[in-house]
Amino acid sequence: MTKNLPYLQVALDHSTLPEAIKAASLVGHDVDIIEAGTVCLLQVGSELVEILRKLYPNKIIVADTKCADAGGTVAHNNAIRGADWMTCICSATIPTMQAALKSIKNIREDRGEIQVELYGDWTYEQAQQWLDIGISQAIYHQSRDALLAGESWGTKDLERVKKLVEMGFRVSVTGGLNVETLKLFEGIDVFAFIAGRGITEAENPRQSAIEFKQEIKRIWG
Amino acid sequence: MTKNLPYLQVALDHSTLPEAIKAASLVGHDVDIIEAGTVCLLQVGSELVEILRKLYPNKIIVADTKCADAGGTVAHNNAIRGADWMTCICSATIPTMQAALKSIKNIREDRGEIQVELYGDWTYEQAQQWLDIGISQAIYHQSRDALLAGESWGTKDLERVKKLVEMGFRVSVTGGLNVETLKLFEGIDVFAFIAGRGITEAENPRQSAIEFKQEIKRIWG
Repeated sequence: MTKNLPYLQVALDHSTLPEAIKAASLVGHDVDIIEAGTVCLLQVGSELVEILRKLYPNKIIVADTKCADAGGTVAHNNAIRGADWMTCICSATIPTMQAALKSIKNIREDRGEIQVELYGDWTYEQAQQWLDIGISQAIYHQSRDALLAGESWGTKDLERVKKLVEMGFRVSVTGGLNVETLKLFEGIDVFAFIAGRGITEAENPRQSAIEFKQEIKRIWG
Repeated sequence: MTKNLPYLQVALDHSTLPEAIKAASLVGHDVDIIEAGTVCLLQVGSELVEILRKLYPNKIIVADTKCADAGGTVAHNNAIRGADWMTCICSATIPTMQAALKSIKNIREDRGEIQVELYGDWTYEQAQQWLDIGISQAIYHQSRDALLAGESWGTKDLERVKKLVEMGFRVSVTGGLNVETLKLFEGIDVFAFIAGRGITEAENPRQSAIEFKQEIKRIWG
């Protein structure tokens, strides 16, 4: 895995297991992080995580559960199938996040991490609470539906990402990203770029992943 | 289904399909609403919804996806397997909720509804926006993890439930409920009581469901 450069994460948000596995097989070796997406987890369950772990034993596997409750159980269920990281929604309570963190670290040890997914309204005071309990990864998310409704990345978004980085978060960004939009983030210490369809629905997904990596290297290298 | 009385909803939050189906089979005929719980959906996918629909063709089936994004896709995936209602997390954007509502109504027609799950911070201004787009069900939730951390139902919670009812919501309540705690809600026009382990882990789950119904009738009948 490249050091110091932002990572590239592919999100598998397909509605069937065969489609998700097919997409993973095309780009799995060329990305740093492979995400079992929420849509697919809700359709096929954590078997997806187990297959990804078996296929890519050395990659970071994320279970994008957007967990809102029962953090210990959900983290346990995904960690035993091989997830290194799991997401909690920002509106989850602190006890839920703590339970998830404890559970994933019990099984994956130092490799286990919780990422907070930022949707809707949240505050920097909440963000500080997440840091205080040992969660230092956040995902800044342009909602797919918001993007479809015509909203896009703006200065306000980029300022929020910067502020979170300054607070001490490793911040991944996602939502409508493609090779052309990466340069919007120039000068910001992004932790990982997460792309779904921008990679998996490209005419040549592997080539698309390689172009993402090249552009990341060009800008941040 | 009893009219005017609060409904009884059982939440199937097991980590395996056999456990969830076993629990459903014990109480499915005695409750009004059967919920495919988030923990189980994330473990086994929407096949759970399809099995519940086949087993209980006349009951309301809820897919508790706590959907935060891709509302149209997630609602479609669950509605085609038989879900009448689906939950969105309160931090989902309005476009996500709108997409989910449109999608579930496309398939389930008037029977299709979206419920907003209230976790963490939310505001009455947001709640009004949900009403404005045609979502009139909310779920007031005591987090399982918060309950485990010692928090419980208090006056503040009950006042919020009342206020939401006054705004025009049908409000379901959930979190650590058992037959004894129902009386806390006396005088409040609760739409449905949602119980998980309070019913499914009882020594006699069917008897427990019947006792819930009796207590509801005693208080609200």
